[in-house]
Amino acid sequence: MSSKKTNKLVIQKYGGSSVSNHEKIENAARRIISYARRGNKVVVVISAMGDTTDNLVTLAKKINPYPPEREMDMLMSTGEQISGALLAMALNRRGVGAISFTGAQVGIITDTDHTQAKILKIETDRLKKELNKGKIVIVAGFQGLSTALEITTLGRGGSDLSAVALAVSLEADLCEIYTDVDGIYTTDPRIESSAKKLKYITFDEMLELASRGAQVMHTRAVEVAKKFNIPLHVRGSFSNKEGTIIMEKPPIIEEPVVRGVTLADNEAKVTLPGVPDKPGIAARVFTKLAREGVNVDMIVQNVSHDRSTDISFTVPKKNLKKNLKISNSISKSIGASKVISDETIAKVSVVGVGMKSHSGVAAKCFSLLAKNKINIDMISTSEISISCVVKKGAGKKAVKVLHKGFNLDKIKS
Amino acid sequence: MSSKKTNKLVIQKYGGSSVSNHEKIENAARRIISYARRGNKVVVVISAMGDTTDNLVTLAKKINPYPPEREMDMLMSTGEQISGALLAMALNRRGVGAISFTGAQVGIITDTDHTQAKILKIETDRLKKELNKGKIVIVAGFQGLSTALEITTLGRGGSDLSAVALAVSLEADLCEIYTDVDGIYTTDPRIESSAKKLKYITFDEMLELASRGAQVMHTRAVEVAKKFNIPLHVRGSFSNKEGTIIMEKPPIIEEPVVRGVTLADNEAKVTLPGVPDKPGIAARVFTKLAREGVNVDMIVQNVSHDRSTDISFTVPKKNLKKNLKISNSISKSIGASKVISDETIAKVSVVGVGMKSHSGVAAKCFSLLAKNKINIDMISTSEISISCVVKKGAGKKAVKVLHKGFNLDKIKS
Repeated sequence: MSSKKTNKLVIQKYGGSSVSNHEKIENAARRIISYARRGNKVVVVISAMGDTTDNLVTLAKKINPYPPEREMDMLMSTGEQISGALLAMALNRRGVGAISFTGAQVGIITDTDHTQAKILKIETDRLKKELNKGKIVIVAGFQGLSTALEITTLGRGGSDLSAVALAVSLEADLCEIYTDVDGIYTTDPRIESSAKKLKYITFDEMLELASRGAQVMHTRAVEVAKKFNIPLHVRGSFSNKEGTIIMEKPPIIEEPVVRGVTLADNEAKVTLPGVPDKPGIAARVFTKLAREGVNVDMIVQNVSHDRSTDISFTVPKKNLKKNLKISNSISKSIGASKVISDETIAKVSVVGVGMKSHSGVAAKCFSLLAKNKINIDMISTSEISISCVVKKGAGKKAVKVLHKGFNLDKIKS
Repeated sequence: MSSKKTNKLVIQKYGGSSVSNHEKIENAARRIISYARRGNKVVVVISAMGDTTDNLVTLAKKINPYPPEREMDMLMSTGEQISGALLAMALNRRGVGAISFTGAQVGIITDTDHTQAKILKIETDRLKKELNKGKIVIVAGFQGLSTALEITTLGRGGSDLSAVALAVSLEADLCEIYTDVDGIYTTDPRIESSAKKLKYITFDEMLELASRGAQVMHTRAVEVAKKFNIPLHVRGSFSNKEGTIIMEKPPIIEEPVVRGVTLADNEAKVTLPGVPDKPGIAARVFTKLAREGVNVDMIVQNVSHDRSTDISFTVPKKNLKKNLKISNSISKSIGASKVISDETIAKVSVVGVGMKSHSGVAAKCFSLLAKNKINIDMISTSEISISCVVKKGAGKKAVKVLHKGFNLDKIKS
């Protein structure tokens, strides 16, 4: 047996941009074959080609602006079925046995929450049978079969979730996420050209980065990977370079405390000035907002003066109108002054698990911004991240300042 | 209860051209609702939107010119799933409960012959449950679930077949086939503008017309409808006019013996001249052709002269090259002269069950063509049809001559 044989079970997930036309599908096929030839068993999780899903949604909305979610799932689940069948054809043409399955066929069992179903279990019998025949198994990502025997989809980032869940169920040795960027960067390279690719990042750091604007991976998939301790290798589908490995405890390397800087400009700030400074008022405000389905991110309550205080919070910009309506009604009911909103904000965050044991990161962050005359509007911190709301126009500059200030441009990638 | 209430179970099949964009899908929805409002239960069988299936096939062939048939079925079955979900959305938007199913979900069980599977049975429990809830049930046509639990498709005319099979299983009162023409005509109106729509036609006549070039319905669906005696109403999806009812015994109406004239120009003639005139030679020739999968239509053997004879037959033009190769090898093995082929032929047929009891139809047919100086190259007859092969250039003229000669332009439609 050749020393190159590895005999591992590998899950490879290909995103929509990695299979957006027939050339890219054939490119993915070649990569899969090179893995299989080394003696590995390969399970491929595939997304819909390019904009397929968006196009189907657009068509549906023309016919019914509020389509039944069960039918949306019938519609949207076709995209991965198509790309999966095409990939199987590409592999078969190259003499490699491959078979494609829908989520339902391969036993990805979910709850009945259409368009954002949760995976309950995976019945892997059929899949294992084909793997044992020596076949490459292709699974349509983003979808499953509900306990009511209906086709479901898993919501945003669903294909990543399918891949991670399969890795857990099959006890895979490796789970690779192929995408159109070649790894996780210290910040968005389109904003800061000195951004460096990270070799490793912890699950917690990845979760913080994702929830603060980094768009490479969705939080749900990372959460499941963390829960079951499945290392994820995020890498580019058009190069052979190593990407970034997301894992619980990366090998110790001398690296800066701050590991990434993110920018999010999809939120707006809402302020309720002159809220009576009585116990329970804040609870009342945010309970009401939660009940109305308003997704609040940062919350800041200023120090009290004259028996009243100001409460500010950020909400997704796309829901601002609805949010303002609710906020106005709350404002009235608690006897506050009128509601103020500001859409011209940006949120800059620095993330790194090292912050837990390093003091002074927050102070350094604020002073870097101050030195560069960037005014901070709101601050919120977690154990491993610091977020500052600044004027929208200063967002990109803030990213650059923090990226350089925390020496992220010096990382060897 | 209103006297307009009809309380029937209706199967409505909509072809690809009837649902090719969102406006047409909404048009179909309005028609379905008008049926449902009259108290009928409606099961809709739907084809893929317009050219969807052809486009998927083109994409597949780019990736693999000989794709595995199982994967072709995974690919092609998505088209009807999409149109079905969209139609359900259109109905729901108008306040009418509707639910779409794939062939697999709704229990259309087939054999394992991928891309041309045969329906074995339909498990109607799930479908009936939804009908009993008062819902309109939409079934993806053209597809099923094999006994090996794989997605299958039914081949050409598959959606018609799904509709007829459902009509049989559900003991439907009516099976309507909506298409882009508004019924069955005495001949192709693009060739002869005086062509008339028939009110009724027998199953046998429809089968003859279909096998001789009429393209409205595929023979398989008509065969099943005949076997179970399910009347089919073929009609246009963009008008409210009655179409043509295909049934076993239409009400007796004074109508001409000949009911339709067809033209087919997709065949070529192959002649083996100088075949030894010995018993068993013809059997040897056509057994060999059948074994090689050559689909022979008409066969003519001329009278013997000098202990040899000429055998001519027609084959689909698209397979001519392959057929000639086989014919040449047969020709050699039986000691015949070289093979002659002719692609410039057309086949004109007249069809009508009345021929069974009326003599002289063939004679009239031949004399009509002769009077108009159209030379007949080959003749073949069945109980209810007469087909003549003529020069390709004379095909359309022959149709016009026969249509007028048998008074088909006088039918009241």
